[in-house]
Amino acid sequence: MAVYTEVSDDELAAFLSGYDLGPVMSCKGIAEGVENTNYLLHMERGHFILTLYEKRVAQGDLPFFLGLMEHLSGRGVTCPLPVHNAKGDALGRLGGRPAALVTFLEGMSVRRPDARHCAMVGDALARLHSAGADFGLSRPNALSLEGWSALSRDAQASADKVAPGLAIALANELAYLHANWPKDLPAGVIHADLFPDNVFFLSGALSGLIDFYFACNDFFAYDLAICLNAWCFEQDASFNVTKGMALIDAYARARPLSRAEVDALPLLARGSALRFLLTRLVDWVAPTDGALVKKKDPVEYLKKLRFHQQASSARDYGYMR
Amino acid sequence: MAVYTEVSDDELAAFLSGYDLGPVMSCKGIAEGVENTNYLLHMERGHFILTLYEKRVAQGDLPFFLGLMEHLSGRGVTCPLPVHNAKGDALGRLGGRPAALVTFLEGMSVRRPDARHCAMVGDALARLHSAGADFGLSRPNALSLEGWSALSRDAQASADKVAPGLAIALANELAYLHANWPKDLPAGVIHADLFPDNVFFLSGALSGLIDFYFACNDFFAYDLAICLNAWCFEQDASFNVTKGMALIDAYARARPLSRAEVDALPLLARGSALRFLLTRLVDWVAPTDGALVKKKDPVEYLKKLRFHQQASSARDYGYMR
Repeated sequence: MAVYTEVSDDELAAFLSGYDLGPVMSCKGIAEGVENTNYLLHMERGHFILTLYEKRVAQGDLPFFLGLMEHLSGRGVTCPLPVHNAKGDALGRLGGRPAALVTFLEGMSVRRPDARHCAMVGDALARLHSAGADFGLSRPNALSLEGWSALSRDAQASADKVAPGLAIALANELAYLHANWPKDLPAGVIHADLFPDNVFFLSGALSGLIDFYFACNDFFAYDLAICLNAWCFEQDASFNVTKGMALIDAYARARPLSRAEVDALPLLARGSALRFLLTRLVDWVAPTDGALVKKKDPVEYLKKLRFHQQASSARDYGYMR
Repeated sequence: MAVYTEVSDDELAAFLSGYDLGPVMSCKGIAEGVENTNYLLHMERGHFILTLYEKRVAQGDLPFFLGLMEHLSGRGVTCPLPVHNAKGDALGRLGGRPAALVTFLEGMSVRRPDARHCAMVGDALARLHSAGADFGLSRPNALSLEGWSALSRDAQASADKVAPGLAIALANELAYLHANWPKDLPAGVIHADLFPDNVFFLSGALSGLIDFYFACNDFFAYDLAICLNAWCFEQDASFNVTKGMALIDAYARARPLSRAEVDALPLLARGSALRFLLTRLVDWVAPTDGALVKKKDPVEYLKKLRFHQQASSARDYGYMR
C-alpha cells in the first residue's frame, strides 16, 4: 500500500484546474501499487486515478509508460488511459513529483485465481503483445540478465540468512542462465509484472490490466513465463498444471507460440523466478522507510525456482501440442 | 492511513452477498482514519465505505456509533448512513473483525481552513448537538478527566524527552483541571473529534461529517472547545481570533450558548488541548506496529495549551456578545 506523498487541497485544485473534468468531488489516498502514491478521484466527469511517481520510477521512463497505456487503450486493451490536460500534456507535476491522471478501471483482482482466470489472463497477455507491436517507443528490460547480476551482488551478503546455502545457489543459477539464456526469440513490448494484483475481473470476465511501470521490451515468452510463476502455483508452492495449461493454451490461441518459444519456456520460467526472488531478497533485507510497503516473502520464489530447475520441457507446464 | 486487515475476494463476496446492493465492481483500501481499516466499494447500487473495526475500537461501543450515525442522518445531519443487510443488521463480521458498510459521502477535507470553513463547522456542530438530543443510547467520555489521569501516568516517563519540564507541567495542569472542571453544563452527544480531516466540503458548502468513533456524552461546549483547538490555530500555533469568532458565532446562532458555557470556554479549551496533548504523547513514544499510522506532533498541543492557560475569557477566542 502506498501514500508516500500527501497533497494539499490547494495544490490538488491547482493541478486539476488544468484538466477539463469539472470540479473534484472526492479524493482518497488508496492502498494500491507499492512504488507510487495513488489517489482515487471522483470528478464531475468521472472517476480517475491520480498517480504521483515516487523515486523508484525513473522520470525518463514515464513517457514510455504513459504512451504505452495510451497506445494499448487505442487498440482494445482495457488499461488505464492517461488523460491529457488542456495544454495537451499527460504528465504534470504535483507535490514535487511527476504526476499523471488516468481513467479508473472497474473490477476486482482475485487472490486465488482458478483455471478460468488463468485462461483469461493468457488471452489478455497475448493480445497485449500483439497490440504493442507498432508502439513507437522502446525501453530495455532493466531487470533481465545484467540487472540480475547487480541485484545478486546486493543480495549475496544476506541471502544465507533467508535460506542457508542460498548465496551459492543464486550464483550458480545466475551463471547457468548467463550461459543458456536465449538470444533470439520473438520480442516486443511486455508487461513484465502481470501478477493477480494487476488484473481486474468483473462479472466473470477480465475487465482490465493495470500497473505498466515495469513494462519494457523483451521476449514475449518471458512475459508468459512471468505469468506462469504469478498465476499457476498454489499456496504451498506446488505447480497446478491445469492452470498452466489454461494459461498457455489461451495465450497460444491468440498468439501462436513458435517451437523455439515453447522449448525455451522452462528456462524463461527459471529466469523470471530468479528475477522475483532477487528483488524480493533485496527488499526483504533493506531497511524500511515508513514501512508502507508490505514485504513479500522471497522463499516463495526460491521454491518456484526449484520447480523450474527440475522441469524438462513445456509439457511440465501443461503445454500439450 | 490504514489498511490493517486485508480481505480476500471470496470473503468479501460472501459478506456483501448479505446486502441488497448488487455485485461489487471495485474495492480499494483507502488511507483514511487512523483507527480502522477502510475500503471504498463501488457496488451496482452506489458507493460505500466498508469499515473493519480494529482492536482500538471497543466492540461494545459499535451499536452506539452506528446507531448515532443512523439517528443523525435521519435528522438532517449529513454523515455516513449505516446500511442494513437483508437480516436487518448494520454490524457484521469480516476478516475476523466486526465490520459495517456505510454510505459514501462526497466532498473534500481542507488542510488550511479559513474563517468561512470555521463558520460552517460551528453551525454543523450546533446542529449535530441538537439532532443528537433524542438519541436513545449513551456512552461516557473515556477521554475526560479520569481518562486523562490514566494517560498522564503513561506519558509521564517520556514527557520530558518530548519537551523539558513537560512531566511536571502535565501534572500541574491535570491537578488544576480536576479542581476547576465544570460539573453542570448543557450536555448530550458530542462528536469529540471534529478535526478538519473529518469534515467534507463541496462547492463551497459543508457536505458531511465523518468518523464518529470518539462520539460520546459530554458537555456541548467541550465539543466547541475541541473545534477551537482543531480549526482556529495557524500553523505557527498562533490563535486566529477571526476564525474563533466565526466558529463560535455560527455555533451560537444555531444553538445559543448559556452564560455558564461561555464562561467555561477557556477552561474547556485547556481540557481539550490537554486531551490531544496526552493521546499524542502516548502515541509518540509507543512502538509502531507496522507504522501505518502517521504520528502527530504532541508539541503542537502543548503550544495550544499554553495559549489557553493565558486566556482570561471567551473574548480571547472571539466571542463578542
